[in-house]
Amino acid sequence: MVRVGIVGALGYGGGQLVRILSTHPGVKLTYLSSELEKPVKISDILPNLRGFLDVECKVYNAEEAIENCDVVFSAQHPGWAMKEASRFLEAGVRFIDLSADFRLRDLRTFEAWYKMRHESPHLIPQAVYGLPELYRAELKTARLVANPGCFPTAAILALAPLLKEKIVDVSTIIIDAKTGVSGAGRMALKLDFHFPEVNESIKAYNVAIHRHTPEIEQEVSVISGQQVAVSFTPHLIPITRGILTTVYAKLTEDTTSQKLTELFREYYSADYFVYVLDPEIYPATKDVYGSNFCHIGLKVDERTGRVVVISAIDNLIKGMSGEAIQNMNLMCGFDERAGLDSPGIEP
Amino acid sequence: MVRVGIVGALGYGGGQLVRILSTHPGVKLTYLSSELEKPVKISDILPNLRGFLDVECKVYNAEEAIENCDVVFSAQHPGWAMKEASRFLEAGVRFIDLSADFRLRDLRTFEAWYKMRHESPHLIPQAVYGLPELYRAELKTARLVANPGCFPTAAILALAPLLKEKIVDVSTIIIDAKTGVSGAGRMALKLDFHFPEVNESIKAYNVAIHRHTPEIEQEVSVISGQQVAVSFTPHLIPITRGILTTVYAKLTEDTTSQKLTELFREYYSADYFVYVLDPEIYPATKDVYGSNFCHIGLKVDERTGRVVVISAIDNLIKGMSGEAIQNMNLMCGFDERAGLDSPGIEP
Amino acid sequence: MVRVGIVGALGYGGGQLVRILSTHPGVKLTYLSSELEKPVKISDILPNLRGFLDVECKVYNAEEAIENCDVVFSAQHPGWAMKEASRFLEAGVRFIDLSADFRLRDLRTFEAWYKMRHESPHLIPQAVYGLPELYRAELKTARLVANPGCFPTAAILALAPLLKEKIVDVSTIIIDAKTGVSGAGRMALKLDFHFPEVNESIKAYNVAIHRHTPEIEQEVSVISGQQVAVSFTPHLIPITRGILTTVYAKLTEDTTSQKLTELFREYYSADYFVYVLDPEIYPATKDVYGSNFCHIGLKVDERTGRVVVISAIDNLIKGMSGEAIQNMNLMCGFDERAGLDSPGIEP
Amino acid sequence: MVRVGIVGALGYGGGQLVRILSTHPGVKLTYLSSELEKPVKISDILPNLRGFLDVECKVYNAEEAIENCDVVFSAQHPGWAMKEASRFLEAGVRFIDLSADFRLRDLRTFEAWYKMRHESPHLIPQAVYGLPELYRAELKTARLVANPGCFPTAAILALAPLLKEKIVDVSTIIIDAKTGVSGAGRMALKLDFHFPEVNESIKAYNVAIHRHTPEIEQEVSVISGQQVAVSFTPHLIPITRGILTTVYAKLTEDTTSQKLTELFREYYSADYFVYVLDPEIYPATKDVYGSNFCHIGLKVDERTGRVVVISAIDNLIKGMSGEAIQNMNLMCGFDERAGLDSPGIEP
Repeated sequence: MVRVGIVGALGYGGGQLVRILSTHPGVKLTYLSSELEKPVKISDILPNLRGFLDVECKVYNAEEAIENCDVVFSAQHPGWAMKEASRFLEAGVRFIDLSADFRLRDLRTFEAWYKMRHESPHLIPQAVYGLPELYRAELKTARLVANPGCFPTAAILALAPLLKEKIVDVSTIIIDAKTGVSGAGRMALKLDFHFPEVNESIKAYNVAIHRHTPEIEQEVSVISGQQVAVSFTPHLIPITRGILTTVYAKLTEDTTSQKLTELFREYYSADYFVYVLDPEIYPATKDVYGSNFCHIGLKVDERTGRVVVISAIDNLIKGMSGEAIQNMNLMCGFDERAGLDSPGIEP
Repeated sequence: MVRVGIVGALGYGGGQLVRILSTHPGVKLTYLSSELEKPVKISDILPNLRGFLDVECKVYNAEEAIENCDVVFSAQHPGWAMKEASRFLEAGVRFIDLSADFRLRDLRTFEAWYKMRHESPHLIPQAVYGLPELYRAELKTARLVANPGCFPTAAILALAPLLKEKIVDVSTIIIDAKTGVSGAGRMALKLDFHFPEVNESIKAYNVAIHRHTPEIEQEVSVISGQQVAVSFTPHLIPITRGILTTVYAKLTEDTTSQKLTELFREYYSADYFVYVLDPEIYPATKDVYGSNFCHIGLKVDERTGRVVVISAIDNLIKGMSGEAIQNMNLMCGFDERAGLDSPGIEP
Repeated sequence: MVRVGIVGALGYGGGQLVRILSTHPGVKLTYLSSELEKPVKISDILPNLRGFLDVECKVYNAEEAIENCDVVFSAQHPGWAMKEASRFLEAGVRFIDLSADFRLRDLRTFEAWYKMRHESPHLIPQAVYGLPELYRAELKTARLVANPGCFPTAAILALAPLLKEKIVDVSTIIIDAKTGVSGAGRMALKLDFHFPEVNESIKAYNVAIHRHTPEIEQEVSVISGQQVAVSFTPHLIPITRGILTTVYAKLTEDTTSQKLTELFREYYSADYFVYVLDPEIYPATKDVYGSNFCHIGLKVDERTGRVVVISAIDNLIKGMSGEAIQNMNLMCGFDERAGLDSPGIEP
Repeated sequence: MVRVGIVGALGYGGGQLVRILSTHPGVKLTYLSSELEKPVKISDILPNLRGFLDVECKVYNAEEAIENCDVVFSAQHPGWAMKEASRFLEAGVRFIDLSADFRLRDLRTFEAWYKMRHESPHLIPQAVYGLPELYRAELKTARLVANPGCFPTAAILALAPLLKEKIVDVSTIIIDAKTGVSGAGRMALKLDFHFPEVNESIKAYNVAIHRHTPEIEQEVSVISGQQVAVSFTPHLIPITRGILTTVYAKLTEDTTSQKLTELFREYYSADYFVYVLDPEIYPATKDVYGSNFCHIGLKVDERTGRVVVISAIDNLIKGMSGEAIQNMNLMCGFDERAGLDSPGIEP
């Protein structure tokens, strides 16, 4: 059994890691910590675990974490992992970071968008971007994984086949994303996420300045082999979980919804967790609620010469904890589906 | 007092007409009818009216309607008004149609998108498109008004100043809209709108084939003086009321959020119900819940050379009943704000 | 015109006061303040007011408030009004307090349930409990009004006719209430009201220890002429506005739903804002959304010898700001319905 | 492997059966049928299963079902199982009925509350009421199981320890329940469950006449050894899944929350899926979302001499499909937790 630790176990992402890993056949949860000042019984904070997993969540201590773990997941605030990761790596503990600290390969881009100095730039080159559909081979030997952001996961999966095949004009990409509120996390309370402010409403935020923009652009550029800038607009909607991403791009050749669907299916033929719907059928976030699947549907609009691709994920699973576990599975030589092979729970 | 009738008073739009008109200072509600087979007390169907307006809603009878009304609002299913409007008009009763029957000036476009034969094509030329911000002068003398669709209202208001000033490339317009479920009406039950199917989910529908597309294109083409095709994608979100529209277009000249905000404010300086927010502040549908206001915010994205404009309306008010009453106010010589001068009710 | 001020204008209740009073025919809003450290444009905080009411909300200053107002509404945190009210009253300014400071006539009960010392016990005897359906005559000459809590309003209105007619055993009263989240206010952020914690969930809280319990018991005891203790359980549900209260009591005589409905209608015959539904028809909170109405439905259960009474209000209107304005109308000699005579906005 | 069939696989309960059983270690899903007129791919109707379980759901055929199954779950409309069950039983196929057909032991009570003639009264005596916490021993040898209603499951679990210990006055029991909308099923569309009618609202329905009342009374009477009548009021709230039940009863002896909590824990010491919270801590339905757990919290109210017990379940799991699988586990000699041993998925 692989010994696994979670630092930051009490947030929404951390809580999902605990839940899923507690039934994973190949691992043993040997270390849980949080930023609280005292140890707590985890089920006192995550009441869904009552009677199922009543173990202790400790105050973080690096030595203790290193000693007890072969793999550590870090679900902490931005800026934490860049300080701590090297200790784990030097001790031979593999490190999966769910924050943005190691996602951007270009240091100046990181510092410009995150408005903080990077404290471990030397680690950036060894971090593997944890999107298995793009980096499966590299992940198998990774020691440090930069788990993708929720928006980038959904956006890149919607775009990758188009870019690989070079059938869209990369200067025309628009990404209109809609997210549930759990993406804002549990720890930092803001009026923006107070129930009466979110309920029965929708709004855009961080228009054209969201920090996930350069992350999307980095990967989109790699796939298309040229520098790409995208328009990215996130919207907040009154659901807890789920991201729906609607991507628009100008086609560079005549094609049909049927042909593009086939192209997507070919591209994702080895990717269990990506499901491509029949042409002109579109996913709902409900369909992937609680699962690691990404559903994708598309439409070629002959009138405008554009393609519209729509992807749906559970932001806490495929957009966060599930993807991180998928990465761990690859790193540890498990079946990629281990612990994750369950459908969405909404009928 | 102007004598006003509502045909189709029990749907969501009809119900709002009843509610607002019942307190309008210049009118008297003299006729209400529905498609039910028997007369009903209106507050038995619209329980918000209990104790406030317990009048009868009749079985529709054209003679009775004509005899009792100076102005009639029709909030019936598509295809109804095209059959009935002429009787009212011939009798001198002004007719405000909330369906799509008279919105499209081109008969073939109508028949292609609505898949029905138009039974009164001779009336189309005299119908005025009921968007007061564009057709205020014409509305003052209109006898037949084609009240806009909810999506077109929000989309056109977001686009008009840009098109008028010719500062966007009209071949690049993308309209990503998100709507509450009341837009689907009350009368036709579908699994798509069953609570557990909508709740905690979001999906796109009618991608690139929604019937409001040609309506948007018609008005956008008029303003810009050339034939325009747009990409339009509606999404269903778990709220009852509200439409948020996110519009993208490529700028044809360098500008700033501040300058465009000023341009929008200038353009809408005579339009009480359109409020332009400060640069890079964005509206939420909650802000206009229950009101006839349209809030608009925008952002110039220098990185991509695009402008993003976001508009928010209450689909049942500015997108339907309120706009219709605004039109009636113009037609009857009332203050344009009469009966409508109240803010959204969410604090 | 009566000059009216609102202290605490930026919370949910204060915001509704501003909204409703801004269209009240008999008053002029002459003073608005908040607890912020700087003056703000009110529509920057309450975005529904954009373009409708863009006035300034000041930093509270007692002299300024007194000088500019004939009537003041206080929508501050508990403990504030007890310190400030006397200054207003001594200056001849009538004072309507929306907090709990003056609701409980018994000082020890207040201090036991609110766990604070009362700083103006001498004012308690002159405060009139602001439930117009019970204290209309007293309110007409009141100088200091203790506006009821939201739960007590709904519970007392459901119980009053039964108690007045002495047809229930007062030792058997159970009040099971369900409230929307706006009742928790806007200013104090808590994880309990963070969207993902409330959404798709329901829970009870403060079971048998909620501070509204002694307030309900005080009024219920007055009506029934004996000391009454009730079981009161509030529940939090994922809606913004609305309280539904389900009241159970053992009947002391044989009766029917029809007879009790008539009794309720007789009891409330002079109360415009209380609407009694037909027997065995029950209200939904949606029916009173945005209005000052209270809807009541009931059922006599012959099998168990109990009556079940269900009342619905909008907690921010009839349970707070609307009731306060109703009280002001009585105090100022206006029509009791002035500014409030509109139905719920949901069709 | 036990061969298992599901008749009525496309409703909300059926869909959960399919989902959970598809990963159950001891069974093979060998037969799925629905009431549709043609066979369908199950993931075309239940999109959460796309890519995970794309098998066929057939048109129901009794011979085929019998031939392919050792155990059948019936999730059909009321009145179906009473007609079909005997064929399965005679062929040696065990039958777990999720409808109400075999729940009530008294034929006249059934026919009075369900307003239909029972077509197989001879089967009633052999049906075991499928609440494992009460009938574990009998379920191990059952051939025909009457799976409990969702409300009875939550209510009986909240009451059983009190009744067993005879510490409440059984004439004072009040059950105030709040349910999500999935309890209404997927197949029958009604305006009552149309999104805009449910959203942002709460209402009571079937007050004192809900069909689950006699079912609760039957089991409560068995436990307490005397005929008991209860007041039962269901409420509809805007969530998809979950039931919260608030039970009130008069205590017949002095006790404390601590003592009663211990009593509940003792009573449920062998019941893995019932978790009793610490005294005066209360469950939220979110805590059991997607799981087979029932969480129970309680409070002794010394002021009124009552106990308040609050139970939370997922109506589709512990209140329906999960409980049915728990019963199957007992019938087939599996670990009672097989296939069900996962926590709620909300962190």
